[in-house]
Amino acid sequence: MKRIVECVPNFSEGRRKEVIDQIVEALASVEGVRVLDVQSDADHNRSVVTMVGEPEAVEEAAFRGIERAARLIDMDRHQGEHPRMGATDVVPFVPIAGVTMADCVEMGRRLGERVGRELSIPVYLYEEAATRPERCNLADVRRGEYEGLKVEIETDSQRAPDFGPAKMGKAGATAIGARPPLIAFNVYLSTGDVAIAKAIARAVRHSSGGLRYVKALGLLVEGRAQVSMNLTDYRQTPVYRVMEMIRREAARYGVAIVSSEMVGLIPNGALVDAARFYLQLDDFSPDQILESRLAEWGD
Amino acid sequence: MKRIVECVPNFSEGRRKEVIDQIVEALASVEGVRVLDVQSDADHNRSVVTMVGEPEAVEEAAFRGIERAARLIDMDRHQGEHPRMGATDVVPFVPIAGVTMADCVEMGRRLGERVGRELSIPVYLYEEAATRPERCNLADVRRGEYEGLKVEIETDSQRAPDFGPAKMGKAGATAIGARPPLIAFNVYLSTGDVAIAKAIARAVRHSSGGLRYVKALGLLVEGRAQVSMNLTDYRQTPVYRVMEMIRREAARYGVAIVSSEMVGLIPNGALVDAARFYLQLDDFSPDQILESRLAEWGD
Repeated sequence: MKRIVECVPNFSEGRRKEVIDQIVEALASVEGVRVLDVQSDADHNRSVVTMVGEPEAVEEAAFRGIERAARLIDMDRHQGEHPRMGATDVVPFVPIAGVTMADCVEMGRRLGERVGRELSIPVYLYEEAATRPERCNLADVRRGEYEGLKVEIETDSQRAPDFGPAKMGKAGATAIGARPPLIAFNVYLSTGDVAIAKAIARAVRHSSGGLRYVKALGLLVEGRAQVSMNLTDYRQTPVYRVMEMIRREAARYGVAIVSSEMVGLIPNGALVDAARFYLQLDDFSPDQILESRLAEWGD
Repeated sequence: MKRIVECVPNFSEGRRKEVIDQIVEALASVEGVRVLDVQSDADHNRSVVTMVGEPEAVEEAAFRGIERAARLIDMDRHQGEHPRMGATDVVPFVPIAGVTMADCVEMGRRLGERVGRELSIPVYLYEEAATRPERCNLADVRRGEYEGLKVEIETDSQRAPDFGPAKMGKAGATAIGARPPLIAFNVYLSTGDVAIAKAIARAVRHSSGGLRYVKALGLLVEGRAQVSMNLTDYRQTPVYRVMEMIRREAARYGVAIVSSEMVGLIPNGALVDAARFYLQLDDFSPDQILESRLAEWGD
């Protein structure tokens, strides 16, 4: 089986096209790495790149991207709505096929060490790669953003980086880590009453007592109430369970689910899990999927 | 996108392992062809091989298999429970990726012409490749089996083959055609009453007024009532619609679905269709599936 890792680096540039292009060029310069998607947002002044490939190639590509961004982006001049602390703000590795989460954690640590040593950029390991519990959450790592961390990194030993100097240059600091694939999942309700979407979001999300790997908000989108979610580990909290919980909560208000959507790239396994659940397919093996057999051709 | 055709030739030998091995060896001797599965049944005295690859390679492999089987199998000595008319009894081509049904029909006709010309084996085109309506159904083409057809092919002009001589040798005749992927789908009920499974099978199957691309039987399997089905075109009659129809019919008898199973290889699309239906995923594109992007690597 081919070993595939996904990497989704976020860069603090969403306006100057020539800068974004040069960073993407650096990422794609490694043979075997495929850039699947580049999303730039001018308000956020940030670009999110999705790339995949074999672990060694993706790790090298991430390094080249960080190096290039450090040369092209000056955080003293950066403004944007999205919280950020570095030219390369965050680099998560995501296991897709033939690699474990432990492999991705190791990639993150090795890359972090190299970035600190060769580029003198402070690196914080986060999520599954975190070295202490209070660094699991990216928002905690990034507290104070570039401007605040620039001061605290030198004065507060609690904020010393995992790798690199306890001192920030114009490239700022970078969070590197590993996480499961994330699914952006939105459910539309048969009502224009956003209060119902908000109540359902509270019911299903982890932070207010709901399912562990669910983040949720209630929104009004084009006149329709929407439960907008990030499913942060679909293997632990599957999409179908979230769907059915929303269906039941909505029914309590006399409301139905009109449709749903998944934004961006989705691991096939999340769809197969839903098919298995609803079709009650016991004793099913992913080996039975014709395309998964074909994928082995590359070996 | 890679072009992939599946081919599922059936050979009239299910007992002599050395003969089966030699036929499979002939199929696999074409570069780029992958034999995914070989199912031999001694009672049927028949082997079903599943192979995949690019169209040209699979067509060549099918020819080599037919040639080898003609040399090794003597239909005058063949006995088995399964209806059959030739050493290579039937050769369906199945479009999987990047090829159309029309492409597979063309493959079947080209292969049929070559088999008739080079091997002097009578060939009947069937299913989507059939040249007349009464040859669509394989059972009609095979009527009388080897022994009966051997006589009628010379005396009844209605039974003249599409290619090759109107005369059968010891290799018999071969049906060659194209069809959609077939899904063997069984649903287990919360009852030991086989009459309920039989009633549900009658309700869902095409032959007695049900869904067009469904063949169904009611069976008792290890004390449990089972609706045993072949779904002959899941793109037209999707698995989830069959599932929900069975669920409703079963409820009428106070019975529930306990589980289901798919036997053998399944096209990923059949599972994705079910996920889309139950999750109510509108505006979903197969391009969003991460693995489908990765598959493009090979280009």
